[in-house]
Amino acid sequence: MYEGLHIVHRHHGAIDLRSDTVTLPSPAMREAMARAEVGDDVYGEDPTINRLEEMAAALLDKEAAVLVPSGTMGNLSALLAHCGRGDRVIMGDQCHIYWYEAGGASALGGMAYHPLPTAADGTVDLDLLREAASLGDDQHEAPSSLICLENTHNRCGGVVLPLDYLAEVAAIAQDAMLPVHLDGARIFNAAVALGVHVREITRHVDSVQICLSKGLAAPVGSLVLGRADFIARVRGMRKMLGGGMRQAGVIAAAGIVALEQMVDRLAEDHANARILALGLAEIPGLNIELGRVQTNIVRFELQIADLRVEEFLGRLRQRGVLMGGMGGRTIRAVTHYGISAADIEHVLGVVRECVE
Amino acid sequence: MYEGLHIVHRHHGAIDLRSDTVTLPSPAMREAMARAEVGDDVYGEDPTINRLEEMAAALLDKEAAVLVPSGTMGNLSALLAHCGRGDRVIMGDQCHIYWYEAGGASALGGMAYHPLPTAADGTVDLDLLREAASLGDDQHEAPSSLICLENTHNRCGGVVLPLDYLAEVAAIAQDAMLPVHLDGARIFNAAVALGVHVREITRHVDSVQICLSKGLAAPVGSLVLGRADFIARVRGMRKMLGGGMRQAGVIAAAGIVALEQMVDRLAEDHANARILALGLAEIPGLNIELGRVQTNIVRFELQIADLRVEEFLGRLRQRGVLMGGMGGRTIRAVTHYGISAADIEHVLGVVRECVE
Amino acid sequence: MYEGLHIVHRHHGAIDLRSDTVTLPSPAMREAMARAEVGDDVYGEDPTINRLEEMAAALLDKEAAVLVPSGTMGNLSALLAHCGRGDRVIMGDQCHIYWYEAGGASALGGMAYHPLPTAADGTVDLDLLREAASLGDDQHEAPSSLICLENTHNRCGGVVLPLDYLAEVAAIAQDAMLPVHLDGARIFNAAVALGVHVREITRHVDSVQICLSKGLAAPVGSLVLGRADFIARVRGMRKMLGGGMRQAGVIAAAGIVALEQMVDRLAEDHANARILALGLAEIPGLNIELGRVQTNIVRFELQIADLRVEEFLGRLRQRGVLMGGMGGRTIRAVTHYGISAADIEHVLGVVRECVE
Amino acid sequence: MYEGLHIVHRHHGAIDLRSDTVTLPSPAMREAMARAEVGDDVYGEDPTINRLEEMAAALLDKEAAVLVPSGTMGNLSALLAHCGRGDRVIMGDQCHIYWYEAGGASALGGMAYHPLPTAADGTVDLDLLREAASLGDDQHEAPSSLICLENTHNRCGGVVLPLDYLAEVAAIAQDAMLPVHLDGARIFNAAVALGVHVREITRHVDSVQICLSKGLAAPVGSLVLGRADFIARVRGMRKMLGGGMRQAGVIAAAGIVALEQMVDRLAEDHANARILALGLAEIPGLNIELGRVQTNIVRFELQIADLRVEEFLGRLRQRGVLMGGMGGRTIRAVTHYGISAADIEHVLGVVRECVE
Repeated sequence: MYEGLHIVHRHHGAIDLRSDTVTLPSPAMREAMARAEVGDDVYGEDPTINRLEEMAAALLDKEAAVLVPSGTMGNLSALLAHCGRGDRVIMGDQCHIYWYEAGGASALGGMAYHPLPTAADGTVDLDLLREAASLGDDQHEAPSSLICLENTHNRCGGVVLPLDYLAEVAAIAQDAMLPVHLDGARIFNAAVALGVHVREITRHVDSVQICLSKGLAAPVGSLVLGRADFIARVRGMRKMLGGGMRQAGVIAAAGIVALEQMVDRLAEDHANARILALGLAEIPGLNIELGRVQTNIVRFELQIADLRVEEFLGRLRQRGVLMGGMGGRTIRAVTHYGISAADIEHVLGVVRECVE
Repeated sequence: MYEGLHIVHRHHGAIDLRSDTVTLPSPAMREAMARAEVGDDVYGEDPTINRLEEMAAALLDKEAAVLVPSGTMGNLSALLAHCGRGDRVIMGDQCHIYWYEAGGASALGGMAYHPLPTAADGTVDLDLLREAASLGDDQHEAPSSLICLENTHNRCGGVVLPLDYLAEVAAIAQDAMLPVHLDGARIFNAAVALGVHVREITRHVDSVQICLSKGLAAPVGSLVLGRADFIARVRGMRKMLGGGMRQAGVIAAAGIVALEQMVDRLAEDHANARILALGLAEIPGLNIELGRVQTNIVRFELQIADLRVEEFLGRLRQRGVLMGGMGGRTIRAVTHYGISAADIEHVLGVVRECVE
Repeated sequence: MYEGLHIVHRHHGAIDLRSDTVTLPSPAMREAMARAEVGDDVYGEDPTINRLEEMAAALLDKEAAVLVPSGTMGNLSALLAHCGRGDRVIMGDQCHIYWYEAGGASALGGMAYHPLPTAADGTVDLDLLREAASLGDDQHEAPSSLICLENTHNRCGGVVLPLDYLAEVAAIAQDAMLPVHLDGARIFNAAVALGVHVREITRHVDSVQICLSKGLAAPVGSLVLGRADFIARVRGMRKMLGGGMRQAGVIAAAGIVALEQMVDRLAEDHANARILALGLAEIPGLNIELGRVQTNIVRFELQIADLRVEEFLGRLRQRGVLMGGMGGRTIRAVTHYGISAADIEHVLGVVRECVE
Repeated sequence: MYEGLHIVHRHHGAIDLRSDTVTLPSPAMREAMARAEVGDDVYGEDPTINRLEEMAAALLDKEAAVLVPSGTMGNLSALLAHCGRGDRVIMGDQCHIYWYEAGGASALGGMAYHPLPTAADGTVDLDLLREAASLGDDQHEAPSSLICLENTHNRCGGVVLPLDYLAEVAAIAQDAMLPVHLDGARIFNAAVALGVHVREITRHVDSVQICLSKGLAAPVGSLVLGRADFIARVRGMRKMLGGGMRQAGVIAAAGIVALEQMVDRLAEDHANARILALGLAEIPGLNIELGRVQTNIVRFELQIADLRVEEFLGRLRQRGVLMGGMGGRTIRAVTHYGISAADIEHVLGVVRECVE
C-alpha cells in the first residue's frame, strides 16, 4: 500500500454517531480507486463498473444491476421504471422513500403516494396492504402499481423485517399482480442480523436498491438490481435523471471493496450498538426500547424535564460526541465503520456527564 | 312555462338512492337553460356565466368565482393554482380528493399527497396536522403547501365539520403560512345542517369548491371561489385542463336556479335521511350509527351472516330501489331532490322484505 | 317549438367575425336541450349522451366516442391516453395543440413537444417527419410516440390537408409503429371543402377530436373517437382532468342537433368567406393570399404604413364589426352560423371606410 | 507520486476520437483522489467539495456553485430551479438539452420545450427569440420562463458563440424579464478559442453548467453556478433527483486538478483538431466546412457513393481508430486529453487508407 495517505477517520476529531452515512473510505478503497481501470460508462465501457454490477447481481441473485450515484436515485429510478404517470405506490408511512426523498416520485414521476400506518417493528397491516393493492379498477381511483418495503427500516430504528413477513407481502403482491421494490439501503445489516445470506431477503422482491456507502463505507454509490429488462429501463431513467456518469469506475472500485471486505464487519457495528443501548438503558433520564435495537441504529428518548434535546446534543458536541435529534425528544446514535468498542465506552461516559 | 316538457325524475322508474349526483334538473332549470342569454366565455362574454360567478362570490363572500365542469376539476384546478411541482398537500385520508379523483394532483400536478388518519367525525388530529404543516424546511422533505378539508364529508357519511374545528385548522394553517382549500361539494348541506349562513363556513378557508349538481340538482357544473388573483390562476389552469367552455351560459342558467331555489330545500333531504336512518335502525340485521346521519347520507352495515351485500342490493334493485355498496358490508343511501317522504316509507318497506 | 325564446344572435349587436367559437345555439338546439332525457353519465346512464356518442362513432367510422367539455380537453385526454411520461409528440409548429393549449401535454402529462416547421399549406416535410418518428432508440432521446395533425389548420388560415398527404403521414406512422391523432376541431369544414364524406379523412388516423361548437354551433362540447380500448383510456383521463360531467345530456342534445342539422350548412360559411376574401383583395392596402381561403377562415395583412392594427380593429369595432389581430400585421375574420351574405357585404363596406 | 499506477490511456489501445467524454483521469487526478480529505456532503461537510465549489464560483464570477454527477443533471437541476410546471423553455433546436437529455425537462419537470431554428454557427434568429420570449400573456399560451444557450455548441460542430451574440441574447432576456441558462459543458473550449477569460462568457448569463469531465479529463462531475439563492434551489433539486452524494470529495479532488491544470491544455486539442480538419479536407471523397472547426470537434461528410458510413467506421476501427456516426453521412472526430499531434498524423494516414 502506498505511503503517507492522509485518512480522515473523524469529523473534526469527534466520535460521529449522527449516521452511518459519515463513514470514510478504507485505505483499501482509496488504493482501489487510485488504480481502477476505467472507461466511459455511458458507452458501457468501464470495466470496473461492469465488474461491480456483475458481482452484485450474482451476490443478490438478480439478473442485472446498475450503478447509481445515491440511494435516493436508486429508489427513484426504480420507481420510475416500475410505474407510469398516475400510478399508485403503496408503502409504509414511516419509510425513507415517503419521508426523506423530497417527494420525488410524485414531483418528477407523477406517482401518487399511498402510505399505510407502520407498526413499531416496521411492518404494515397485511389486510390494509391487501385492500390497497386492489385499488384502481374504478376510474375514480389511481391504479395500484407497486409495493415498497424498507429493510432494515431506518425510521423504525434499524429494525429487521422478518422473512415470513416478506413472504406474505410477496404473496399479496403476486395475487394483485404488483411488483415489490425493496429499499435495501441497509440490506446487509438485515442479512447479518438475521444470520442469513442476503438472497434470502432479495428472493421475495422484484427489485432492490442497495447502498455501497453507509455501513459498507464506500464514499459514493448505490446499485439497483432486478430483471434484465427492468434494469434496462432503470438505465434509461438514470440517464434522464442525470445519473449516467463517465469514468465512474473510480467509484465502483471502492464499491467492489465494500462488497468484498465490509459486509461481515457489520456484525461489529451491531455489537457496538448493543453495548451502547444497554449502557444507555442504565442511565437515569433516558428511555430506550431495547427490543428495537436490532442492528446499528440506537434510538432513545431524553426524559429529563428541564433538559432540552438541543441543549443535551450541544453538551455532547462540546465533549466530542455527535448524535442526532429526530424530532420530539428522540435522539439517534448510529454505529459504523471507524467506531470502536472503546469509542462506545467513551461515549457512554460522556452521556452520563451530560445528563447530570 | 312551456308545455309538455318531458322530465325524467327517476332512473328507469326506480327510487335511486345511490347518490345525489343522479338528481335531474328541475323544470325551472330547463326553462332557464332554454332561454339563457349566452356568449363566448373564453372571451369572458357570457352574461349568464358572469352573473352566476358574481352571485356565488357574493353569497360565499369571496372576491371571485369561476365556473368549471365538475367538482373534480374544481378541486384539481384549485390545487394546481395553489401548489407547484413537488409541493406537499395535507388532507384527511378519507377525503374525496385522495380517494376518488384518480390521483390527479400527483399524476398531473406533481404534488405529493400527505394523508392523515381521519376520525369518524371527519376530523384529523390537530397535533398531527400541525406537525405535517411544518414539514419542508429540510431539502429531504417535500415542502408543505396546502391543507385540504371536506365539508360535508362524503366517506364519513355526510358528517358536518364543526365550526370551531374549522377555526382551529385555519389557525394552524395561518401559523404555518399555508392556505386552506375546502372541497365544499356539499357545503350547503353543511350550512343547512348547522343552521348558519354558508359564509360562516367559507370565512375559515382561502378557497372553496362548490357543486351546483348533487343536492342542488343542476345538471352540470361547479364553482371555485377565492381571492381574485387566485381565481385568475384557476382560470389559467381551467384552460389548460380543457375546462374552458364556450356558450356555457346554458349550464350556468341552471346553476343560478340551483343557488336561488334549491338551497333551502336541502332540509327536506336531511329530514328524509333521518326518517330513513331511524327506520333502518329498527330493522334486525342492520347496524347504523345514528349520530353520523347529520345530512343527506345514510350509511349502514348489513350484518346478516348468510346474506351477501351484492345479493341484498340485487333484491332491492328488483323491487325498484337502488342503493350503493361502499366496500365490506357497508351500504349507502343518499336522499336528494326528487325523493319524497313517501318514497322513504316505501323504501323502508322494501328493505324489510329484502332482509327476511 | 315554444314561444318567445330569446335568442341572442350577435355579441352586443355586432357582426362578430373574431372566431366561429362565438356561434350561438340554434332554436332547435335550445329546444332539444330543454327536453333532453338525461341521467348520470359517470354511471354511463345518460341516454342522450350515449346516443350522441354512438351516432358520432358511426358517422366517423370509429369504434367508440366520448363526450368532453372542450376541444382542448379532447386533445389533451387523447394525448394522455396515447402517451406516457417522457414520450415525444411530433406535430407541426403552427398547430393549435402546440400554440394554444397552454403547454398542457408537457405541463400535466410530461410529454416532450417535437414541433416541425410547417409550410403555408399546413403540411410538414415528410422526410423530417420520418426522421422525427424514428427517434428514441437511444437512451439519450425521448421516444417518439405519437404524430399529431390538424385539419382544417387554424393558424394556416383554415387550409385543408390533402387526402394523399394524410395517407403519406399514415404510412410513415405505420412504419414507425406510431399512432396518429387528428385535431379535427373543424374536420367537417375540411370534409365539406373537399366534397368527401368525413370518413375519408378519419380513416387515415387512429384517433380524432371533433368540436360540436364552432361552425356546428352547439354551445358546449367535443368528442374524442378511436378504438374502444383507447376510448376507455380517454374516459379515465377525462375523469382525472375533471371532464366527467353528470347530466350532460343537456349538452349532448345540442350536439345531436349539431351533427344532424349543421354540417351541410358549413358550405354557406365557406361561400361567405370566399366573398369576403375576394372583396378584401380589391381593397387597397390589404394583402390576402386567396389560395389559402379554403374554408371559413380569412386571414389578411394590413399594409397601410401609418395605420396600426389596433387602430384599424378599433375603427371596425366602432362600426359594429369585430375581427381579430393575430400578431404582426395579420388580421383574421371567420364566417359562421349567424353570419349572412348580406352581413359580409356590409362588412366589406365598413372595411373600406376604415382603411381610408 | 506513488508507483505502479496502471493508467489506461486508450480504449483497448485504440485512438478513440468518438468524444472527449472518453478522457481518462491524469495521474495527478488519481493521486488527488487517493489523498482527498472527505466528509458527508449532504451535511455540507466535505472540505474538498467545498473547496472545488468556491474555486469554481470565483473562477466564473458567480456567487455560488454546486457539484452534480453529470452535465445532464447540471442542466436538469438548473431548469427545475428556474422553471415551474408548465413553463416554456426557449432554446435552439440543435442544442444538447433538446436532443440528448431524454426529454427530462418535460418528462420530469413539466416544462414545454420551445425550440427555435438554429443556424450553422449555433445561433438563433434574434427576432424569433424576442417573439418567443414574449409568449405567455394569454392563458392559451405556456408562459416563457427561460432562455437556454450552449457554448461551445456540440451538434453545430463545437462552434463558439460570439460574445456580442451573448450580449444581444442577454438584452432580449432582460427586456422580457427572463433568466438565461448556459449549457457550458465545453465552456473552457469556448474561452480558450476566443482567447478571453471565461468570465467574459459567464457575465452574460444567470446560470451556467460546466463539465469537469470531457476536455478537462476528470472522471466524473459537473458544476452548476449562479446566484446563491438559485444555487440553494439547485441543491434541493439535486437532492430530489438523487445527485446528493456522500464522500464525493474523491470526485471533487479530481475536479480541482481539472480546473487548475487542464484548462490551458485545451489549446492543444484545438490545434490537433485544426490539423486533422486540414488533413481531411485534402482527402478526396470527404467534405468538411473548415470554418466550423473552431475548437476540438471535427465534423465531416463522407461523400463516396458506394461507401456506407458504417462500413467506413468499421474499417477505421479495424485499424485502431474510433470515430462516431452522427446520422446521415456525417462523421465526428473529437480531440482531447491523451490524443497527441502524432496520433492525428497517424489517424490521417488511416483515413486515407479507408477511403481508397
